[in-house]
Amino acid sequence: MPTSSKYDLIVIGGGPAGYAAAIRAGQLGKKVACVEQERPGGTCLNWGCIPSKALLKSAELYNKIQHSEELGISVAGVDFDFSKIVGRSRQVSKTMAGGIGFLFKKNKVDHFTGVGTITVPGMIEITAGKDKGTILTCEKTLIATGCKPRQLPELEVDGERVMTSRQALEMTTQPKSIVIVGAGAIGAEFAYFLNSFGTKVTLVEMLDHILPVEDEETAAVAQNEFKKQGIDCRVSTAVQNIQVSKSAVSMDLVKGDRSESITADSILLAIGVVANTEGLLSPRVKLAQDRGYIKVDENYESSVAGIYAAGDIIGPPWLAHVATFEAIQAVQGMFGHGKPQQVTDFPGCTYCQPQVASIGKTEKKLKEEGIAYKVGKFPFQASGKAVASNQPEGFVKLLVGEQYGEILGAHIVGSDATEMIAEYGLGMKLEATAEEIHNTIHAHPTLSEAMMEAAAAVFGEAIHI
Amino acid sequence: MPTSSKYDLIVIGGGPAGYAAAIRAGQLGKKVACVEQERPGGTCLNWGCIPSKALLKSAELYNKIQHSEELGISVAGVDFDFSKIVGRSRQVSKTMAGGIGFLFKKNKVDHFTGVGTITVPGMIEITAGKDKGTILTCEKTLIATGCKPRQLPELEVDGERVMTSRQALEMTTQPKSIVIVGAGAIGAEFAYFLNSFGTKVTLVEMLDHILPVEDEETAAVAQNEFKKQGIDCRVSTAVQNIQVSKSAVSMDLVKGDRSESITADSILLAIGVVANTEGLLSPRVKLAQDRGYIKVDENYESSVAGIYAAGDIIGPPWLAHVATFEAIQAVQGMFGHGKPQQVTDFPGCTYCQPQVASIGKTEKKLKEEGIAYKVGKFPFQASGKAVASNQPEGFVKLLVGEQYGEILGAHIVGSDATEMIAEYGLGMKLEATAEEIHNTIHAHPTLSEAMMEAAAAVFGEAIHI
Repeated sequence: MPTSSKYDLIVIGGGPAGYAAAIRAGQLGKKVACVEQERPGGTCLNWGCIPSKALLKSAELYNKIQHSEELGISVAGVDFDFSKIVGRSRQVSKTMAGGIGFLFKKNKVDHFTGVGTITVPGMIEITAGKDKGTILTCEKTLIATGCKPRQLPELEVDGERVMTSRQALEMTTQPKSIVIVGAGAIGAEFAYFLNSFGTKVTLVEMLDHILPVEDEETAAVAQNEFKKQGIDCRVSTAVQNIQVSKSAVSMDLVKGDRSESITADSILLAIGVVANTEGLLSPRVKLAQDRGYIKVDENYESSVAGIYAAGDIIGPPWLAHVATFEAIQAVQGMFGHGKPQQVTDFPGCTYCQPQVASIGKTEKKLKEEGIAYKVGKFPFQASGKAVASNQPEGFVKLLVGEQYGEILGAHIVGSDATEMIAEYGLGMKLEATAEEIHNTIHAHPTLSEAMMEAAAAVFGEAIHI
Repeated sequence: MPTSSKYDLIVIGGGPAGYAAAIRAGQLGKKVACVEQERPGGTCLNWGCIPSKALLKSAELYNKIQHSEELGISVAGVDFDFSKIVGRSRQVSKTMAGGIGFLFKKNKVDHFTGVGTITVPGMIEITAGKDKGTILTCEKTLIATGCKPRQLPELEVDGERVMTSRQALEMTTQPKSIVIVGAGAIGAEFAYFLNSFGTKVTLVEMLDHILPVEDEETAAVAQNEFKKQGIDCRVSTAVQNIQVSKSAVSMDLVKGDRSESITADSILLAIGVVANTEGLLSPRVKLAQDRGYIKVDENYESSVAGIYAAGDIIGPPWLAHVATFEAIQAVQGMFGHGKPQQVTDFPGCTYCQPQVASIGKTEKKLKEEGIAYKVGKFPFQASGKAVASNQPEGFVKLLVGEQYGEILGAHIVGSDATEMIAEYGLGMKLEATAEEIHNTIHAHPTLSEAMMEAAAAVFGEAIHI
């Protein structure tokens, strides 16, 4: 049970930054509390990464069953239970959230439920929620309140006609048609999921290709596969004049000087996030911020001594794994467990099929920055494992420095891209060269051989192309 | 078309060592020929790694369909066409073999079909097969004839009652029951495949656990899962007194002082390999050998100058990826393209479900050698991605040096183990420490995070356990 004595650390927010920070502090023997409004796990575990992967797994299997004849397997009739699919996804989140609760106990993290407000530096009051009224004191505070989905002004999110990813993750009725605004990872994943089960999906992106932060070439493969799957991809297109009625949503899709009206059961907004600072700071506590994000120094410390911040709340790239890394670094730093490391390279993943994963810079970026680079590319069509697995779509593209062959960027599109990227991630961390990757024996037959062959291709030495 | 002028290199054998060597020599601008009895690709591509992965993919999907209700998908009736499954597997091999043919043309490799016999150093005669009678001369020869499945004395392989992996890969009728002798990777993969489709499988292993070269702990998980799947695993058991009748095979399974008679439709011998040297050397050419394997020096050169050997024919570990590596090193060395590298660490993979993959030493081996080590272990049950994917079985185990934290061995059992091992492979190549792997940002949610968490666990710093 919580005690009233002073904490070494209070973490506000129980997501991938917050819970990791609290656990790490517990491991270091610190007296630590975590204040979270909902159950632990944050957006990622409860309303993001984890439940969406459960949905996508159902979609993947459903798609594979449609093509099972190719593998010699026949199915008389296949059907699905949308509410069961969503229900399993919720259950997965619940299980994992329970796991965090267990880890809190194991690491002696006191867990408070409610809105943590920093009344003055070193004092946290729980100003709403179950533990409202509790006042806690601490040596150090870590803000890890994260972000929430961005909404559009004057468009009420009602969870049925108008949704963000949060509502979409607990849909009980499958929409017959949907317009998804924003074709980043979240928009693309929902497009793949819903389209797989027969929803008519229109995926709208302002920029000129889906997955706009990804390399143009990998995104183009994904976009092409999406089209084959039946997703209506509209790029360089704006959504205007959204009208919500009782039974439908209508809007204009505007591309250049052409406008088209479209009506669907629902609209899903996947247009980014905004900082979550509601109720965080009393008026007496002023932290330097930038567009709502809390500014921190190289120790993850804010403009007020003793108050730290990590994760989405300090700004992009808004990725759970980056948030966790930052939070652990912050905690280690504040308790003298090494100098905090900064985020340099990190992978980005989209879990539709084909999957898209990348690390480092895109070709476009390298060109813009005038960096001399070489390309090694290997198509999965030339991979025995990919062909044997009936998944020959996509490729691995490795971008290395012209002079030294160090990894500048890597871009993978294919069935297992999100796992494969890990190897290049370690490669970048260790400053591996293309030559070293090429000379590393990779198991045959695996998709990972394509990572080695792409490295070989930099020198024109790939064997299988 | 082949010419009669002298070759820079003649490669005998067109498998993963031979074809890679020929292609690499072609890339280096050398005049090169490859002599192969069958179509290119060798055992691996035609009768091993590649077609078996196609079979396993069908089995995986069939198993997933049996459990599709868990993912909210219902299937009215599921059936399979065994001959279609095997047919697709053969087609995959054919496609990939065609690819090698294309690569030979692209790299100007002359391809001869038949048995290549070294009549004297620098002269190869094709002594059997389509191009019989052709005589070729060369500066250098690379022997890459590989191995073939070991058989038992006085037990005729008839392809129906008695098979090796070669015959098993083109079974047209599914046996109702089978005894698989040898529970290494090949035996285990066939056990998983056939059992998935309803064959009653008895898997017999002389040593005390299945996958005897793997770490005891990962093998135990696989063995336990095999039992759950219905495979009858018999370890520390010898097969004796095999009797083949027209309709069945009977034998005694002997464990300690107990013997049990068993009868099955077929027996599959997966008891290792023997060197393939039939017709390779004329009596005038004497190469130093060891139990049939050709002895080579650090340049992959045999006891006769100008005659090199690489791949399975120079002895264990009899892995395609090791063979390819050796062959490329040999070719690069013989043509002055760098000092040939030796094989140090290499991954080993078994593609049943759960998959088993490893690199470096087992715990048993470290103990035997008296090497001080630390263990980091992370179970997939604590991985959000594994739980969301409904595949929480298994774990990642990392063994590192006690003093410096360098990777000594890594052992993974789980749904995607064979791809995941690549990261640790690069880690070993680059002499990464557990700390460096721990500090590398891994994408969330991926199974690969377990690689990072296992590294963290070495220091008691894993977040999710």
